[in-house]
Formats: sequence, structure tokens, C-alpha cells
Amino acid sequence: MPNPTAAMLVIGDEILSGRTRDTNTNHLAQALTARGIRLQEARVVADDQGAIVAAVNALRGAYDHVFTSGGIGPTHDDITADAVAAAFGAPIDVRADARAILEAHYQRTGLELNEARLRMARVPDGATLIDNPVSSAPGFTLGNVHVMAGVPAIFEAMVASVLPTLTGGDPLLSQMIDVKRGEGEIAQPLKELAQQYPDLSFGSYPYQRNGAHGTQLVVRGTDAAQIDAAVVALSRLVSQS
Amino acid sequence: MPNPTAAMLVIGDEILSGRTRDTNTNHLAQALTARGIRLQEARVVADDQGAIVAAVNALRGAYDHVFTSGGIGPTHDDITADAVAAAFGAPIDVRADARAILEAHYQRTGLELNEARLRMARVPDGATLIDNPVSSAPGFTLGNVHVMAGVPAIFEAMVASVLPTLTGGDPLLSQMIDVKRGEGEIAQPLKELAQQYPDLSFGSYPYQRNGAHGTQLVVRGTDAAQIDAAVVALSRLVSQS
Repeated sequence: MPNPTAAMLVIGDEILSGRTRDTNTNHLAQALTARGIRLQEARVVADDQGAIVAAVNALRGAYDHVFTSGGIGPTHDDITADAVAAAFGAPIDVRADARAILEAHYQRTGLELNEARLRMARVPDGATLIDNPVSSAPGFTLGNVHVMAGVPAIFEAMVASVLPTLTGGDPLLSQMIDVKRGEGEIAQPLKELAQQYPDLSFGSYPYQRNGAHGTQLVVRGTDAAQIDAAVVALSRLVSQS
Repeated sequence: MPNPTAAMLVIGDEILSGRTRDTNTNHLAQALTARGIRLQEARVVADDQGAIVAAVNALRGAYDHVFTSGGIGPTHDDITADAVAAAFGAPIDVRADARAILEAHYQRTGLELNEARLRMARVPDGATLIDNPVSSAPGFTLGNVHVMAGVPAIFEAMVASVLPTLTGGDPLLSQMIDVKRGEGEIAQPLKELAQQYPDLSFGSYPYQRNGAHGTQLVVRGTDAAQIDAAVVALSRLVSQS
């Protein structure tokens, strides 16, 4: 069975202005790889309804799963829930189940559930809530789109609660060899080996450390025995060439 | 004059597998903001010709500039130059000017300019070379697409040589206020102020530090006096509400 596919959609002006560095994509990428789901694309768009709707519709049609991060807080620039509803043509309003979660949270903390905070209970019809163990305001899954918070601690907790509910594939395995040579010298044997093992992918990542050139060679795939064999062949080739 | 727009396209399986964390987008975002060019979208795609061609064509049609990072080294998975040429329908081959740069570099370093390394001189017809002061192999600009290396030190050097050649806009300015309150309490005054200043953008970024909630409020725009006025009004509003 082929591995399921996924895309990440990061939403937020602060990423595009350079103010904030996105760390959620890397976290999701690692979690999906471990679960055997292939992250095939990531996008960052601004807090703009048209841009979010277009990206959600392009990605949910192309991949098995879409994960979004950002734009589900209480302020005027938090428009992700409404934009995702619009992308699906689904009605959206404050929903009783989400409202009950917020009421319990603000009662516990002694703060007021004001109109702005109540916006965090806006959930499209037909969506399933995603638990937020950090600050209560839930995310949601609508169709194949998982809508999650941008704050990394909350995003990561939501990923942890969503991933076990998804059908994974064979784990995506990898092995790495570190070669103390420039990649230009090992490109030819690497290419030949890649042709010999069409089910594996071979990556080559040059680096420079203390003035010396080196290359990390990474072999990826789902068949552990095949990866082992390729790594043995690769080690032999790069020591000869 | 409106600010020019841009998109970033990161190319590489290693970003999508989670092995490598992309830092080039954040670097470019900051450099463009300082130059008055609005980064409006970023994408990450795999080392896959079809995916690269589709993304290049979508982005170059939608924005004034496209910056790519990754996939221009000597190995079989470095297919960005050929994919960009295909996106434009431009012929591509080893080009004399790029070859001369590599020949001088490898003569200097005493290494062989083998067939794999010569692939780094593949440049589409009509493209202008981008200088690589770190490891010589050039990037290139074709139309409104700037093709650069993935290794951060080289990417950053190429950005530094390309940006001064582009027409910038009014610098994108921002000011930040740190408020020791949750964003749910200041969402209403923030929304009202955003309506009052339609040319500015107001961002709200909650954080938690040592158990205390706080919010960073960011006002962005190109008119320094307007930003000053909005920040004064904002400070007054959040201390009252």
C-alpha cells in the first residue's frame, strides 16, 4: 500500500515579514515521517481570506491530509476557521460543544469569556474538535483538513492528538553516511546506485566544517533490508571512487 | 507606489522529511522587508520535476519576484536548473560563462572539474548569472525567477548580491508593544484600531513566560508617522480596557 500523503499550510503575516521563524513545519515533518505519511508540500500564506481559501482548496484536492497552523485565536486577524469553512462552503458559527469547553476553561481561570474569546468557539458544521490540553481553545478537523494553533506548544499537542487517529503507512526509514569528501566526487557513483535502487531515494547534503568539505549521504525508503544493502554498496563505492 | 511582491520556493526532500530545518525563508523574509518588497507566499516542494515546474509557473505569474533555494549542486537530485528552464520553455545546456567560473575555481583548488561538477554550469538561455562568493558555482536569474543555492551561507550571499539589483518599495516598518495580558482581553480595542487605520496591519502574538500570559502587539506599515500615532493610541487603549 502506498504511503498516505500530506501538505502543511502555515498561516500568518508574522512568518512572511520575518518576525517569526516557523518551527511547526519541521515538527510536523518529523512526526509524519515516523507515522509513515509523506509530507509532499508546505506553504505559507498571509492572514488573508482569499489566500487561505485558495491554498486550502488546492492542497485538500491534491493530498490525503492537510494540516494548518495559525490564525485560530481571539483577535481580528484570526480568520482561519472562517476561511476553511468558506473553502468547504460549510456554515460556521459559535458551536455549543466548543463554547462549553471555553466556558469551563474561563470559569476555572476566573477570566471573562468575552465576545473576542467566544470567536474561538466558531467551528464549521460537520467538523470534529481537536483537543487543546494547553489553553483549551480547540482546533478542528473538517474533511481531510486539520486546523491547529500556531503557538508551537499547542500545535505540537494537537499533532500528538490527531496523528494516532490517521491511517499511517510503512514507516519512512533512512540511514546516513558521512563522507569526508565533496559531493562532486561522489555524485557519479551515487547516481548509478540511485538507478539500481529505484524504490529508494538518495540525498546528498554537502557541508563545510573547520575548512574541510564533507557530504552527508542519506538513503530513504520503507524496506529496511533494501536500505541496508544500498548503504553497504554505497560505502564501498565512495571509498573506491 | 505599491510595494513589489515576492514568493519563496524551497526545493528539497530533506526539508519535507524533517531532516533539515529551512532557515532560508526567514532570512529572505527579513531581507525583503528591509528592502520594501512584500513576501506574500512561501512554498516547499520535493526534488521532483513536475512539482517544481508547477510551483515556479504558479508563483512567477502571481508575484513580481520568485526566489528559489536548493537543488543546484552536482548530484542526480539537483534538478532545479533544468526544472526552471522547463517551466519557461527555455533551452538549457552547459554555458561557457558558467563553465569558465567553475574551471577557474577547480584549477585554484586543485580538484577535477568532472562531469558531475560540470552540471553546475547548466544555465538556461537568456539567464543572468548570480555570483557565488562562497563556492563559485553560480545561481541565475531567468525572467523574474532568482535561482539560488540551498546551503544557507551561499543562499545568503546570493540574496545579498541580487537584492540591490531589484527595485524596492517604501521600507516596511513595524513597532511592537509588549502587554502583560492575554490577547483575549485586548482583542476588541485592537480590532477597533485596525478599522481606524486601514493602511496599517495589526498583529497580535500571545506568549506564556514563567506561567504569566502576555501579548506582543505589532503594528506594520510604510508610513512612520501613522505607525507612531497608532502605537500611542494602542498603548492608551490597552491600558484602559
